[in-house]
Amino acid sequence: MIKAGIIGGAGYTGLELVRLLLMHPEVEISVVTSRRYKGKLINEINPHLSSFIELEYEDIDTKEIADRSDIVFVAVPHGSAMDYVPELLERGARVIDLSADYRLKKKEYERIYKRPHKDKDKEKRGAVYGLTELHPEVADANLVANPGCYPTGAILAVAPLVKEKEVNQVIFDAKSGISGAGAEPSETSHFPNLAENIIPYQVTAHRHVAEMRMELGVKVSFTPHVIPAIRGILTTAHVFLNTHSEEIEETYKRFYEGTRFIRLRKGMPSLSSVRGTNFCDIGFEIEEKSNRIVVISAIDNLIKGGSGQAIQNMNVMFGFDEAEGLWFPGLVP
Amino acid sequence: MIKAGIIGGAGYTGLELVRLLLMHPEVEISVVTSRRYKGKLINEINPHLSSFIELEYEDIDTKEIADRSDIVFVAVPHGSAMDYVPELLERGARVIDLSADYRLKKKEYERIYKRPHKDKDKEKRGAVYGLTELHPEVADANLVANPGCYPTGAILAVAPLVKEKEVNQVIFDAKSGISGAGAEPSETSHFPNLAENIIPYQVTAHRHVAEMRMELGVKVSFTPHVIPAIRGILTTAHVFLNTHSEEIEETYKRFYEGTRFIRLRKGMPSLSSVRGTNFCDIGFEIEEKSNRIVVISAIDNLIKGGSGQAIQNMNVMFGFDEAEGLWFPGLVP
Amino acid sequence: MIKAGIIGGAGYTGLELVRLLLMHPEVEISVVTSRRYKGKLINEINPHLSSFIELEYEDIDTKEIADRSDIVFVAVPHGSAMDYVPELLERGARVIDLSADYRLKKKEYERIYKRPHKDKDKEKRGAVYGLTELHPEVADANLVANPGCYPTGAILAVAPLVKEKEVNQVIFDAKSGISGAGAEPSETSHFPNLAENIIPYQVTAHRHVAEMRMELGVKVSFTPHVIPAIRGILTTAHVFLNTHSEEIEETYKRFYEGTRFIRLRKGMPSLSSVRGTNFCDIGFEIEEKSNRIVVISAIDNLIKGGSGQAIQNMNVMFGFDEAEGLWFPGLVP
Amino acid sequence: MIKAGIIGGAGYTGLELVRLLLMHPEVEISVVTSRRYKGKLINEINPHLSSFIELEYEDIDTKEIADRSDIVFVAVPHGSAMDYVPELLERGARVIDLSADYRLKKKEYERIYKRPHKDKDKEKRGAVYGLTELHPEVADANLVANPGCYPTGAILAVAPLVKEKEVNQVIFDAKSGISGAGAEPSETSHFPNLAENIIPYQVTAHRHVAEMRMELGVKVSFTPHVIPAIRGILTTAHVFLNTHSEEIEETYKRFYEGTRFIRLRKGMPSLSSVRGTNFCDIGFEIEEKSNRIVVISAIDNLIKGGSGQAIQNMNVMFGFDEAEGLWFPGLVP
Repeated sequence: MIKAGIIGGAGYTGLELVRLLLMHPEVEISVVTSRRYKGKLINEINPHLSSFIELEYEDIDTKEIADRSDIVFVAVPHGSAMDYVPELLERGARVIDLSADYRLKKKEYERIYKRPHKDKDKEKRGAVYGLTELHPEVADANLVANPGCYPTGAILAVAPLVKEKEVNQVIFDAKSGISGAGAEPSETSHFPNLAENIIPYQVTAHRHVAEMRMELGVKVSFTPHVIPAIRGILTTAHVFLNTHSEEIEETYKRFYEGTRFIRLRKGMPSLSSVRGTNFCDIGFEIEEKSNRIVVISAIDNLIKGGSGQAIQNMNVMFGFDEAEGLWFPGLVP
Repeated sequence: MIKAGIIGGAGYTGLELVRLLLMHPEVEISVVTSRRYKGKLINEINPHLSSFIELEYEDIDTKEIADRSDIVFVAVPHGSAMDYVPELLERGARVIDLSADYRLKKKEYERIYKRPHKDKDKEKRGAVYGLTELHPEVADANLVANPGCYPTGAILAVAPLVKEKEVNQVIFDAKSGISGAGAEPSETSHFPNLAENIIPYQVTAHRHVAEMRMELGVKVSFTPHVIPAIRGILTTAHVFLNTHSEEIEETYKRFYEGTRFIRLRKGMPSLSSVRGTNFCDIGFEIEEKSNRIVVISAIDNLIKGGSGQAIQNMNVMFGFDEAEGLWFPGLVP
Repeated sequence: MIKAGIIGGAGYTGLELVRLLLMHPEVEISVVTSRRYKGKLINEINPHLSSFIELEYEDIDTKEIADRSDIVFVAVPHGSAMDYVPELLERGARVIDLSADYRLKKKEYERIYKRPHKDKDKEKRGAVYGLTELHPEVADANLVANPGCYPTGAILAVAPLVKEKEVNQVIFDAKSGISGAGAEPSETSHFPNLAENIIPYQVTAHRHVAEMRMELGVKVSFTPHVIPAIRGILTTAHVFLNTHSEEIEETYKRFYEGTRFIRLRKGMPSLSSVRGTNFCDIGFEIEEKSNRIVVISAIDNLIKGGSGQAIQNMNVMFGFDEAEGLWFPGLVP
Repeated sequence: MIKAGIIGGAGYTGLELVRLLLMHPEVEISVVTSRRYKGKLINEINPHLSSFIELEYEDIDTKEIADRSDIVFVAVPHGSAMDYVPELLERGARVIDLSADYRLKKKEYERIYKRPHKDKDKEKRGAVYGLTELHPEVADANLVANPGCYPTGAILAVAPLVKEKEVNQVIFDAKSGISGAGAEPSETSHFPNLAENIIPYQVTAHRHVAEMRMELGVKVSFTPHVIPAIRGILTTAHVFLNTHSEEIEETYKRFYEGTRFIRLRKGMPSLSSVRGTNFCDIGFEIEEKSNRIVVISAIDNLIKGGSGQAIQNMNVMFGFDEAEGLWFPGLVP
């Protein structure tokens, strides 16, 4: 039994951590913070958690959180996480940061996120990029930089091709449920604006493309859209090979053999089979007389694309079964 | 560890039983039938169950199912269940029937469902109406008639008032997600017909009203609608008392004390906090200078309104913790 | 050709007035105001109006608006309309107020809206309640108080019964699209909160009930809900008569004979057939062996429940065909 | 005033023709056919048309339809249209075929649609591909092959680049509302399957790609998805130029100058601004340090992608104003 603290427990990512950790047999939630709701009962602010948790939201006190936790999940916005991570680490807690603050090289981060990185020892922290299937070194990490939601779906979709075939370029066209934009109401999340609609945004310059390029090392383009759905990211990867498309299925099978949460599908996946789960379902089709392959991946953005993957990383870090607390089928219908 | 069989495992109710029982620590699924898909792998027909079940759908063989199961869930349409229930019972299996076939008195059934009841020993079977909170005698039953989805939400909403106050009449105005209509595509479930719509149907004469009257024993009216949502039933009960409205909150608290799945809410519940759960959330408001109380209940129609309640009944029948396999918070957002 | 001004042209009601008046052959839009967007092109703020209007939003100058307009639509929130209406009238414009400020008797208004009425001559203005079908005196009015969206659907549903039969009481259970809550993002309109949900609110004490009581004069209860849809209100009226239910169909036909926008339906209406229109579709069903009738009405809340009805009133006030600019079928599918 | 017949008036395309032509000042609907509903009143089968049309559905009698119509719209499935078109033309009617039967060269058609073309004079008919903006020769055509919904959005999005720049290749990733799949309920259109989902299909081999290649003459890939929305197609075109991206905005402006239904947008379009209209809204963004341009187009699939474009073609064929009967803004919200 380990103790887990959550910094930022009122947003969607933080709440999903609470919900999932409440079901985890090896974890006790020790502290959940929220500046907005400090002193209020978590289950009153969030009636779906009623009967499951008696804790109150607390204010952020890094020192105390580190003392009371073996692992701390940092679920605050980009730019804030780096205010807490250094002290947490220095006081002996292991940390999984769900923000972008430790994903990229410092210089790249500052260029993309347009702000200086405040942690002067950033590069020495040894943060591991927590795409669990590709980075077994998570096991020994004290700091895991949990991947962005879009990069999770995109990278997992094409990693086998990029690593084992000669890929010329990849165009990712992603479609996300609106929960990825957070719990705060906005123009885009206003029901009359999103229902019966699909909204493209940052069509050539979304910040997540940096993670994709870092992990894949090939020419990558990325265009996101939000769809009128709560959860899920469907990534359509248009992959162009330098050569003919051979043994694609075998490549995928071999590459993902032994993983717990990648499911290769014969047909094309859609969001429903992964709704509420930590799975990444993948399917592909080879275009006839062409060197183009269309690969589709489906994830739940809040679970495999966020809090579930964070817990998967925690499981690996602490030597639990990788799927502990995450092994349940999708909510269908 | 008990063995559970499911007759009718390709519809929404049957699939939900499979999904939930796969997570139940005291149950092993022994057989799942489907005429349409017999011989096919359950996890190929239903990709959300992939990685969780290796069984094939089988044809219905009552004798064999009874032999291989301690408990059999019958999840076939009204009128068909009574073809299987008698032999299952006679061969020693305990049975939970999710159809309407054993819910009502024979005469009432034949009047409402406009067909003769084929089980000549129907009245001797001792079927218990499986609204778990109101019928502790479920524990000793060999045959449980699992309630309809609408009656579950409606009866639980007003039972404390009806049993402990003088209720003059109740008008139930219910709003259901479309999954209640089943897995088969229809005009009503056709996306362009239901999206951006709300569809009233059988506005004075829905068959489920008979269950409500049987359990409540007061003047009841019932009008259902389908809303553009997958899961959930929100029941708005307009309750008229003969007297002034006093101690309503206390009445509810006392009446539901000790139950596991009734959550009394200070505000009005909505579908989101019960999505994917076995809870029934209830809230009410007393109309000023009036003897009217508006009570709102929210359930997930496929879980508390169907397969979850069936498993809750099974837990009680076999002496497990009532909440075993059903104790998880809602999928929010 | 008359000139129409719109005070408050950036909210949903104001925008709908713009959209509909642009298509009206007898009207020229003279001025549209918005404090937030003054000086900006209407068609840049609202791309759906691109190619149709070249005007800029202006600040509110009552005097100038009155000078430039034969009719002024006031589409600002309750409590603000009364700041503009008096001067508009005094300067000779005719006015249709879409807020609640002139719908109720002063005393009733102050009780319900919990604020003093600032127009000291309120009762002398001779405002006509603009439910066009019931108030032909709209023709001669200088000030029309356009009805609320819920009262429009509710009153039209039962007026024939209330006026021509002995009605004991009516319970209105209404379901509205979220556009009724306006263009401003909020918790309720946040897509992840409303999708897959239905949200009851003000279940015993919504302010609109006062209009229903004023017009119907019988015992009325009212409970509203928002559904995951953009437009439309479906009102389920549970009507209890003092006597048996006879000649109901004839009563409705006779009562609404000659109206242009009431369509009596054989089955139950739903939102889709009135989407984007000024129609109110009505159907009913008599409960067997009972004195209860369920009447269902469907309107588009922004058109018949708001801006369309305002234009219908304008047509009557200026002697145009009542349906001018409003005669088009629904957007189905 | 011309007379218009509609063959196939019960599907979504046919109904949309009826709805739009009812509002067209120069057209009288002379006949509407439906095998399924012959003899039934159109406004009873389709309550949204109630009060607007008194006709009954008729059976198909090509001879009579030709006699009674100046223009015949053929709105039946691929493979059936060619049963009617020859005789209609031979009897002197002008024809707009909304199916694929006359869009492609005969050989290409037979390869793609995997059936022989039954009209032996197919190539002599002189069918004009009715993408109105690109084919002014529609004016003199007796037979117009109305484009597919996907090709309309895709071709209009990139035509200026393809015709005036050096385009290397285009990847179209399209997202369509489900009404494109027709009025018949199916697994895909079943609400619980499509809500909260996005479904890719025919990801490398959709038949519509043939039209795109025919019109554009460059390397084209196409992957469609259905989204949980009723109407609309958003096409994301990933365009790769051979050269740097210069004067793109000027190119678009020049190319579409004088068109009525193309609206160039500064930001990215979405479905809402074209909902219920004949517009095609287009926006683009140039990827920094790259030869990639992302172009987004938005149409209403049933109007500009189907029946509206057919009427636009009719307007051009008969010398009416191109926008007659089609000049209205979108239904927002």
